[in-house]
Amino acid sequence: MTDQLFIRNGTILTMEADSPVIENGSLLVENGEIQTLGPNGSLALPSRARVIDAADCLVMPGLVNCHTHLPMSLFRGLADDLPLDVWLFEHIFPAEAEQINPGSVRKWARHSCEELLLSGTTCCCDGYFHGDEVAGAALETGIRIVAGQGIIDFPAPGVPDPEKNVATAVAFVRRWAGRSPRIMPSIFCHSPYTCSATTLVAAKQAARELGVLFQIHVAETKAETGNITDCGDRSVVRYLDDLGIIDDATLLVHCVWLDGSDIAIIKKRGAGVAHCAESNMKLASGIAPVPGMLEAGIRLGLGTDGSASNNNLDLFQEMDMVSKLHTVACSDPWVMAAKKVVTLATLGGARALGLDQKIGSLARGKRADIILVNLKKPHLVPVYNPFVTLVHGAKGSDVSHVIVDGRIVVEKGELTGRNRP
Amino acid sequence: MTDQLFIRNGTILTMEADSPVIENGSLLVENGEIQTLGPNGSLALPSRARVIDAADCLVMPGLVNCHTHLPMSLFRGLADDLPLDVWLFEHIFPAEAEQINPGSVRKWARHSCEELLLSGTTCCCDGYFHGDEVAGAALETGIRIVAGQGIIDFPAPGVPDPEKNVATAVAFVRRWAGRSPRIMPSIFCHSPYTCSATTLVAAKQAARELGVLFQIHVAETKAETGNITDCGDRSVVRYLDDLGIIDDATLLVHCVWLDGSDIAIIKKRGAGVAHCAESNMKLASGIAPVPGMLEAGIRLGLGTDGSASNNNLDLFQEMDMVSKLHTVACSDPWVMAAKKVVTLATLGGARALGLDQKIGSLARGKRADIILVNLKKPHLVPVYNPFVTLVHGAKGSDVSHVIVDGRIVVEKGELTGRNRP
Repeated sequence: MTDQLFIRNGTILTMEADSPVIENGSLLVENGEIQTLGPNGSLALPSRARVIDAADCLVMPGLVNCHTHLPMSLFRGLADDLPLDVWLFEHIFPAEAEQINPGSVRKWARHSCEELLLSGTTCCCDGYFHGDEVAGAALETGIRIVAGQGIIDFPAPGVPDPEKNVATAVAFVRRWAGRSPRIMPSIFCHSPYTCSATTLVAAKQAARELGVLFQIHVAETKAETGNITDCGDRSVVRYLDDLGIIDDATLLVHCVWLDGSDIAIIKKRGAGVAHCAESNMKLASGIAPVPGMLEAGIRLGLGTDGSASNNNLDLFQEMDMVSKLHTVACSDPWVMAAKKVVTLATLGGARALGLDQKIGSLARGKRADIILVNLKKPHLVPVYNPFVTLVHGAKGSDVSHVIVDGRIVVEKGELTGRNRP
Repeated sequence: MTDQLFIRNGTILTMEADSPVIENGSLLVENGEIQTLGPNGSLALPSRARVIDAADCLVMPGLVNCHTHLPMSLFRGLADDLPLDVWLFEHIFPAEAEQINPGSVRKWARHSCEELLLSGTTCCCDGYFHGDEVAGAALETGIRIVAGQGIIDFPAPGVPDPEKNVATAVAFVRRWAGRSPRIMPSIFCHSPYTCSATTLVAAKQAARELGVLFQIHVAETKAETGNITDCGDRSVVRYLDDLGIIDDATLLVHCVWLDGSDIAIIKKRGAGVAHCAESNMKLASGIAPVPGMLEAGIRLGLGTDGSASNNNLDLFQEMDMVSKLHTVACSDPWVMAAKKVVTLATLGGARALGLDQKIGSLARGKRADIILVNLKKPHLVPVYNPFVTLVHGAKGSDVSHVIVDGRIVVEKGELTGRNRP
């Protein structure tokens, strides 16, 4: 017996390349997979299907958040109006040492998963400690996740002995490999200034052998190269490339301080980039050269970063910020047009994570990660161009339904309850 | 018989200078005026008062939006990803000529008033044509407004003969003066590049005689001086000052392209400034020198601008943008700290409009323009600092109650209906 879901009467934004918007469209999901989609009349309603009426709604792929630290919602607003180094070393690291344990990680990761789902994000890419708890929270709440176990060269939550940081991450990946189609374990090295060259090389080597994504914070601040012992006068990207860290299964997070040759290296190696505009603005880190990276053809997605440095996980707000920030920074109103930004938050994010064969757009054969945005709100009327409405008008709170892997996890703006595997 | 409203159990942000936050506070409104406020135990509940339980809520002054064009929600998303000149002359002005009439102005001004109220704004400062319809919509919906009748030196909606533009505005002000304590008529000259020196001087003289606020778009783009016939090599601010336009009853909107001597002029004359960060970003106009203006002691408030150039009227989102934009632009995480931004969106806006004796903070004797922000949402938990929560976490959709001039116009996130005078 099949599990069928039929969404009808919606304006479908497939986010497939060159695909037109389907007005008054329907979409059929079977066993978590998109079976077919098209104008209302072209699809017959299966007799046993659960039906969602998407009248007055946009139907689109769930948003993909390429960089989170889910348990850090515990520290949302703990320390603000500070630069990265002070924020991190004087506030966040000490607070983590005191308050982070398996129980708090589970609780606040769950909290963040719920916040993400309620605001239309169906997949996130996370990096933190106590990875089992993060992955467990994702499994329970129903979100899709790339869950990275953190590696750092000093005592960290759950990893008191830094000598065992790589081994801990490897064990985490092995425990979670193949356990759920929604959970993709990963290895997350915190940064080149908190991990030695030896650690970086060992961790990347392990990720390669395990066949998982390797994530790392890179070039977040201007001062970063000065804080890396072995960097010399190289750029951070050049330093990591010389170590053999950068390839098509690497996700470089932030990439604020890049020059043209750094962009060329990233493009040549085929790495993905997570752009975190709000975090970079809030911590006064700088403005990443996103138009240049896109022009070079780099796989780039959007991330909110953790709640402690944003302070929210709403990718709708991030889309608005990304569009307006680069528009004013480049003095070019066309450089980050609405459709391009929505693409970055959906298919672009999936590409950056290497998941675009599976999610990121609405197409036959893809997994059913779908959201409905309710347009019947004063601030979203009228709609001349749905992409503009999404970027400059909509908020996470306008999301009415969220479906992950074919399961309805948010209905009429409310969580449907815990979706245990 | 008095009309009493009692708000209790809330965290009260008075926004008065140096006032502490009142935890578990109560506030009594009588006949639209704040009578008293303090810790729960310090106030007795009057027997006939209507009671609002503000548990889990922040209680704060309604937000003040210093620059809107309410009827332009009709054009929200009509033309995007364009610079100001192309957007204005090739899209907006032609669309206005075709679609703007008293009926559409009334309809869409009402729409915007509702959008503003639902997102926690209790007072806006507007500039448009068919001012009677804008003021009428505000009167009906219950918002407080400074309503400016537009003046421009070519045929405009409702003003086919530009020779009569000043007289039309004067007649509008006379019709509305003293009609409602919530409606303050005003004169709005579109800009120095669409109004001649003669028009500007006559309009400002009329505003002075009538005792009303004179509003004008100023220094929005870098190219502006080149589009003003009589400007010569002066800055726009210098040009307007030489015309005698700038005084303490003038609101200068945008002020993106200012130098130090322009800031000195504005400070010396005591004029107010409306800063519209999102609009300036979206239209690639530039980044206004807000920290410099604040340091000089200029009265500055926040504005969303019209829905066609933002594209939303949510001042919570604007607060987030203002904080993050200037933080990254100045590479200084302290320059636009959260409490400062909330002040700009409340008391700062009231000061810029010359209304701070009446609204902008919660204090005995002020009119009761009050909002409740519901903190019981995943994205607003936990709260370490309520100002940070408001700026970086909250959205207009988190506002549960809105009170204007003592009347409840939004309750549990829904409009209570039309509040006719």
